[in-house]
Amino acid sequence: MTSTIDLNMVNAYIPGRADVGPEMAAQIARRDALLGPAYRLMYERPLQFVRGEGAWLIDPQGRRFLDIYNNVTSLGHCHPAVVEAIRRQAGTLQTNTRYIHDTILELAERLLASVPGTDLAHLMLTCTGSEANDLAYRMAKVRTGGTGIIVTETAYHGFTDAVSQFSPSLGAGVDLGAHVRTVPAPRLYHAEGADLAARFTRDVEVAIADLKRHGIKPAMLIVDTLFTSDGILPDPAGFLTGAADAIRAAGGLFVADEVQPGFGRTGGQMWGFQRHGLKPDVVTIGKPMGNGQPIAGLMATHDALERFGQDSRYFNTFAGNTVSCAAALAVMKTIEREDLIVRADTVGTKLNKGIAGLANRHEAIGDVRGVGLFVGVELVADRATRAPDRALTSRVVNAMRDRGVLLSACAIGHNVLKIRPPLILTEDQVDLVVTTLDDALIEAAGHALGAAA
Amino acid sequence: MTSTIDLNMVNAYIPGRADVGPEMAAQIARRDALLGPAYRLMYERPLQFVRGEGAWLIDPQGRRFLDIYNNVTSLGHCHPAVVEAIRRQAGTLQTNTRYIHDTILELAERLLASVPGTDLAHLMLTCTGSEANDLAYRMAKVRTGGTGIIVTETAYHGFTDAVSQFSPSLGAGVDLGAHVRTVPAPRLYHAEGADLAARFTRDVEVAIADLKRHGIKPAMLIVDTLFTSDGILPDPAGFLTGAADAIRAAGGLFVADEVQPGFGRTGGQMWGFQRHGLKPDVVTIGKPMGNGQPIAGLMATHDALERFGQDSRYFNTFAGNTVSCAAALAVMKTIEREDLIVRADTVGTKLNKGIAGLANRHEAIGDVRGVGLFVGVELVADRATRAPDRALTSRVVNAMRDRGVLLSACAIGHNVLKIRPPLILTEDQVDLVVTTLDDALIEAAGHALGAAA
Repeated sequence: MTSTIDLNMVNAYIPGRADVGPEMAAQIARRDALLGPAYRLMYERPLQFVRGEGAWLIDPQGRRFLDIYNNVTSLGHCHPAVVEAIRRQAGTLQTNTRYIHDTILELAERLLASVPGTDLAHLMLTCTGSEANDLAYRMAKVRTGGTGIIVTETAYHGFTDAVSQFSPSLGAGVDLGAHVRTVPAPRLYHAEGADLAARFTRDVEVAIADLKRHGIKPAMLIVDTLFTSDGILPDPAGFLTGAADAIRAAGGLFVADEVQPGFGRTGGQMWGFQRHGLKPDVVTIGKPMGNGQPIAGLMATHDALERFGQDSRYFNTFAGNTVSCAAALAVMKTIEREDLIVRADTVGTKLNKGIAGLANRHEAIGDVRGVGLFVGVELVADRATRAPDRALTSRVVNAMRDRGVLLSACAIGHNVLKIRPPLILTEDQVDLVVTTLDDALIEAAGHALGAAA
Repeated sequence: MTSTIDLNMVNAYIPGRADVGPEMAAQIARRDALLGPAYRLMYERPLQFVRGEGAWLIDPQGRRFLDIYNNVTSLGHCHPAVVEAIRRQAGTLQTNTRYIHDTILELAERLLASVPGTDLAHLMLTCTGSEANDLAYRMAKVRTGGTGIIVTETAYHGFTDAVSQFSPSLGAGVDLGAHVRTVPAPRLYHAEGADLAARFTRDVEVAIADLKRHGIKPAMLIVDTLFTSDGILPDPAGFLTGAADAIRAAGGLFVADEVQPGFGRTGGQMWGFQRHGLKPDVVTIGKPMGNGQPIAGLMATHDALERFGQDSRYFNTFAGNTVSCAAALAVMKTIEREDLIVRADTVGTKLNKGIAGLANRHEAIGDVRGVGLFVGVELVADRATRAPDRALTSRVVNAMRDRGVLLSACAIGHNVLKIRPPLILTEDQVDLVVTTLDDALIEAAGHALGAAA
């Protein structure tokens, strides 16, 4: 069923590439038959888990895997405060936003308090980040009268019909909309000393001009403020200001997609846009928001939302349900109580340094960049040309998995390791990540030599 | 904030229309400020709840309201089997579909076993019914090469950018797509003895022809198999066959939206399309699927899905998560264990008969129609002309609320009471609904006379 090699997902299971054993093969066949051809599994040897605990996932044989990829359970798997909030609320009341309920209002107050200095005034809830970006686009169309969208070349913003049309990372099999323009990702490592801010601003201006030449009025520039699927591109802080100004000058909105960078991941601040000193019109949020419980949403300025709210009502049956709100409120309180934003900064700095130190030992490491607890490691065939080494990257990901550490890869060249541990990562676990990566790089490079021989 | 009167939602709270008291007024003001202008509350005097139990919702003062509107917690609020499944799984493992997990596979097996005699072969999961209909549309576009959509005139299929464009019930403020055609709802009560099946088939054929005249290839006909937002139109069983054949003959897919009719609500069968003897290409499901836990999805034939799965991968971070799947599996098991499909039929028949009996006492009742535990009561100004009485309907809804019974209204004339109790409704509760409706109709009609005097 899943017999096509998925060139767009560096880390997908590809049938027949590795021996998975008869039991796993039977499970995969059952799954393919039931779920059909669109689903993918991770890793050459897919994994099955039965339990999660802190940074660990545990398989049926009791083997523990350090999960430094999952950006959902970012407080750690089954965090007791969130589990308790879900358990209590699920047994008390599970209903929707057409009745008054305190928890959603307390959640809104806390979230809106996390964006001081912006004009963000309202919270709207969805179930997924895709729905949040979809709603942001509907809102931008109503507010601006335009339809045009600008995204980066390997952006991922979601899977709805509208959002998949501005998510080029889904691959050539999924059409981009005629109203969508892509700009090169702001890759400092490949900028050759150029002024990245000026270049990115100019690229956005060119895209705006091209939309207009085609009779398309710009509605929004939307960026993941860490450029996650473009390869994790945090620096230099502040480089987005010109682009945000340019889209506003053209009558469009600036939308910060915080689904991946948000909730403290970048360390030192709650949201990625704050690190860049931006004042977005709309901020979309999701993934770690409920530590696994489905909840996402957006914060918008009154100006961005007003007309949409006049023209159309908004109701999403499950969004803002009492249980998901209770989970999200527990997440917000836990981030504060456990001081996780500071922790993401200090532990993240140690992680970044540890991995950067490996560059001395491994010629394949072209660049290590990160902020907070999000690190990208760009693997190259040649440091001089910076040519991507996709095959090596894939081997490293699978070698890490075999050594019990779960991560993945991203970027246009599929050659950037994506390291995104839970915010509760310990210093010991940092050491484990660094030593395991050292080993995996040795093994993966050895394979490469072996294959070439 | 929410100061515009929402003509498209018969049952919305409208500021200033009724005195809600200072405490509720303050809550509403706080909510409007935080959530912004797009959200709506129900009823002239909005409600706040703190607890749910079986068919009951309980407010902060301990007053109990019989919830015969909520189509999510259709096993009753906080059903112990579902709460227990959520509690157990939330404390054990909360992860996604890129790893192997048994629960999703068991859920898929049970769901696919519930559609014998069809070619539906695969289950795909989403978080909301909107996402399911959005995904069905993406799939239909890929499979057919078309974009055209046919829906009924007051259909509701969801709120994503794509789906809102084929949800005319959202009102004139939300644009229908240029690729969307609406057909009259199959209103037997207004059919004047005509052959409804032939008429509906012809209307769909006309819509197909009109799409083609505009150079638009048909992708799908999508209908809620109970035509919920069109006014609850169940009869005559079987009338959809010709329309489904027509869209297929034109190269499009027939999509059954079971988000509202599904999971036993129609009594006697699990799905509304089964009552009509149909074999859909895609069936979308949602709302009661997790008894409140966010989960939805679709079942598709291999033919409908194959090309989509080749061209694009599908991953929805929260969809198919272990906790939501555990909740949905508990729902499926509970429906079976408590024999709720049979119960929906027997208790539903009593409810239908009880309400139909009121027609002798209330001239305003033009039509009572229903199947299983879903009843529509069409209120008219004149039985001869069948003219809708929207104002009366609104008064009845609010009079029911004031008497402690929660329902709403729908249809193009906003004049059909929408009665949709949980599947666990008792016979005593049926009596309570009927006697309360009797009283509410007397009061509401009295108001009408009083207002005219």
